[in-house]
Amino acid sequence: MERIEALKQIAFEKKGFDGFLITDEANMLYFTGFPGASSLLIPKKGEGIIYVYGVNYEQAKAEGKGFNVKLVKRGENLMAKIAAQVKAFKTKKLALDTLSFENYRNLVKRLRGETRLKMQNKLVWELRRVKDEKELELMRKAAELTGEGMKVAYEVVRPGVREYEVAAEIEYTMRRKGSWGTAFETIVASGVRSAFPHGGCTDRKIREGDLVVVDIGATYQYFRSDMTRTLAAGKPSAKQKKIYEIVRLAQEKAFQALKPKAKARSIDAVAREVIEKAGCGEYFVHGLGHGVGLEVHEPPTLNQESKDRLIVGNVVTIEPGVYIVGFGGIRVEDTVLVRKRGAEKLTKGPYMLETKR
Amino acid sequence: MERIEALKQIAFEKKGFDGFLITDEANMLYFTGFPGASSLLIPKKGEGIIYVYGVNYEQAKAEGKGFNVKLVKRGENLMAKIAAQVKAFKTKKLALDTLSFENYRNLVKRLRGETRLKMQNKLVWELRRVKDEKELELMRKAAELTGEGMKVAYEVVRPGVREYEVAAEIEYTMRRKGSWGTAFETIVASGVRSAFPHGGCTDRKIREGDLVVVDIGATYQYFRSDMTRTLAAGKPSAKQKKIYEIVRLAQEKAFQALKPKAKARSIDAVAREVIEKAGCGEYFVHGLGHGVGLEVHEPPTLNQESKDRLIVGNVVTIEPGVYIVGFGGIRVEDTVLVRKRGAEKLTKGPYMLETKR
Repeated sequence: MERIEALKQIAFEKKGFDGFLITDEANMLYFTGFPGASSLLIPKKGEGIIYVYGVNYEQAKAEGKGFNVKLVKRGENLMAKIAAQVKAFKTKKLALDTLSFENYRNLVKRLRGETRLKMQNKLVWELRRVKDEKELELMRKAAELTGEGMKVAYEVVRPGVREYEVAAEIEYTMRRKGSWGTAFETIVASGVRSAFPHGGCTDRKIREGDLVVVDIGATYQYFRSDMTRTLAAGKPSAKQKKIYEIVRLAQEKAFQALKPKAKARSIDAVAREVIEKAGCGEYFVHGLGHGVGLEVHEPPTLNQESKDRLIVGNVVTIEPGVYIVGFGGIRVEDTVLVRKRGAEKLTKGPYMLETKR
Repeated sequence: MERIEALKQIAFEKKGFDGFLITDEANMLYFTGFPGASSLLIPKKGEGIIYVYGVNYEQAKAEGKGFNVKLVKRGENLMAKIAAQVKAFKTKKLALDTLSFENYRNLVKRLRGETRLKMQNKLVWELRRVKDEKELELMRKAAELTGEGMKVAYEVVRPGVREYEVAAEIEYTMRRKGSWGTAFETIVASGVRSAFPHGGCTDRKIREGDLVVVDIGATYQYFRSDMTRTLAAGKPSAKQKKIYEIVRLAQEKAFQALKPKAKARSIDAVAREVIEKAGCGEYFVHGLGHGVGLEVHEPPTLNQESKDRLIVGNVVTIEPGVYIVGFGGIRVEDTVLVRKRGAEKLTKGPYMLETKR
């Protein structure tokens, strides 16, 4: 309810809208706490309306406290139903978070110029990108579970084990300890595949001398976490150690540079400079990081083009990497919170290439 | 490549388009076999173009065989790049699978009336909804792994165990046996929560007398599976048994009715009639089923409004359910293949309320 009030404040009071239609899944979850809504219409005055199909109706009534839950019946057109309600509210200026091209056209047609529509997802992000204490509690728990999973990686990665077998042990540990599921598809990318930042997780057998990029995340009460370590199967080579140290230094320097009001772009630059100076600039093929919350990739974005500035309450990843085809890839990542003074790592775990065997 | 040729056949030869822009993730995976593309542009003649960002470029070159892989550089506008290419191809009539409202507007503006755009996702679905032998091999494997997970449910569900602990054991078994991940968020919904068809999986402790809806799916090489059983924690009551038999009969009759050319709507009606005759019609609050493939919910749809007809090669779920607030819910689901003569269950496992304890 506080979140709805905050949205009303910035969208209605400050921006002059008199209605907000939310249809993005994560946005609806953010404002309602309930995962099964199909749309959320927030009028200028009075209760928000949650539209749900029959399959989720009873759950919405039980869990969607403080909202007017409306059933979308069989054969009903949801956009027509919303348009009728917008007219009944006499909404003149409706903000939208997102709509497909077809639904937008459908809605515009039904409102026949009586209501102006405007995409205003950025207003929702003004709220979602600042995590409050309640959200941070859940994100800390998700991060803690992720750290437990990473411990397991160091125990099970070794030559002869398949990538999915490593994922099985990690995910099992996170789940048993209370994770609501993986925050994204687990990456266990070994050998030649470690050079692909999104290498996934296949049935490839890990071999002696492989680098193994382990990128995992637990979810707790819908909030996500994201953490990467790179492990060597067997004794690390001198080159592996050298590049590992470069990536770690880049991460540490970027972490130290994090503070409120900093440009996201300049945090990326701090890490990139370390890697470039070491002669590996061309191999750092992605941005430094991204926001994390109800979604695993959300604002703010930390890369070379970002126009974002960091603020207190942002939770972002810091994940430099070096990927050399033929040699392999090394990435080190933590999920961190921007605080008044500097930053705090939510994901915790030692930095090392060596496994327990 | 065969899939691209088939799309060219129906879109270019039959429908008169001379270009197809694919941006949906699952569609791109379907046509390229590669999960990291940002767009796929198929011209009338010559190789398709995969657009990828730097982070996925090396992987695309390694895995995107038969395509022209183009790097989207930092700061480049993808829609601008695509528009330029469409002009270079002198495409007059471009089919699209889907685009966000913003990207559509962006693309239309840049093409300035020189190219007509038309949403034609249904043409892609004409292909994707018919599974060939290669796809069926992967779906059978995904279904087999799902069945292995369900066996575990019967071993671990009992009073005192938490929902997420049940999920942990199931997912671990599927993963260890080769699953690439869960096909969707595992549902272990017990007691009062079993009456919510999408009840999720929380830290609730299962109690004596609870119904427990277990809805799970493994993925194998991107193909998914979907299966539900409902278990009783402790000795099932007479009412639980009675409703279970109704749901099972509804499922079996619908399964027997499946055949090529049947209306999806009438298969739903077969199951619904059984449940209605038993006086539970109002508690069957969702459709009978949905297609499964690269996505867990895809065409065709089996419900009361569906206009789909079944054809050989469709893979669909058959999942009637009865959900009574205060009593609980019972759902039974299998993923099945429509064959020339009747149908075949891909997910296999006994039908029973009783657990192993």
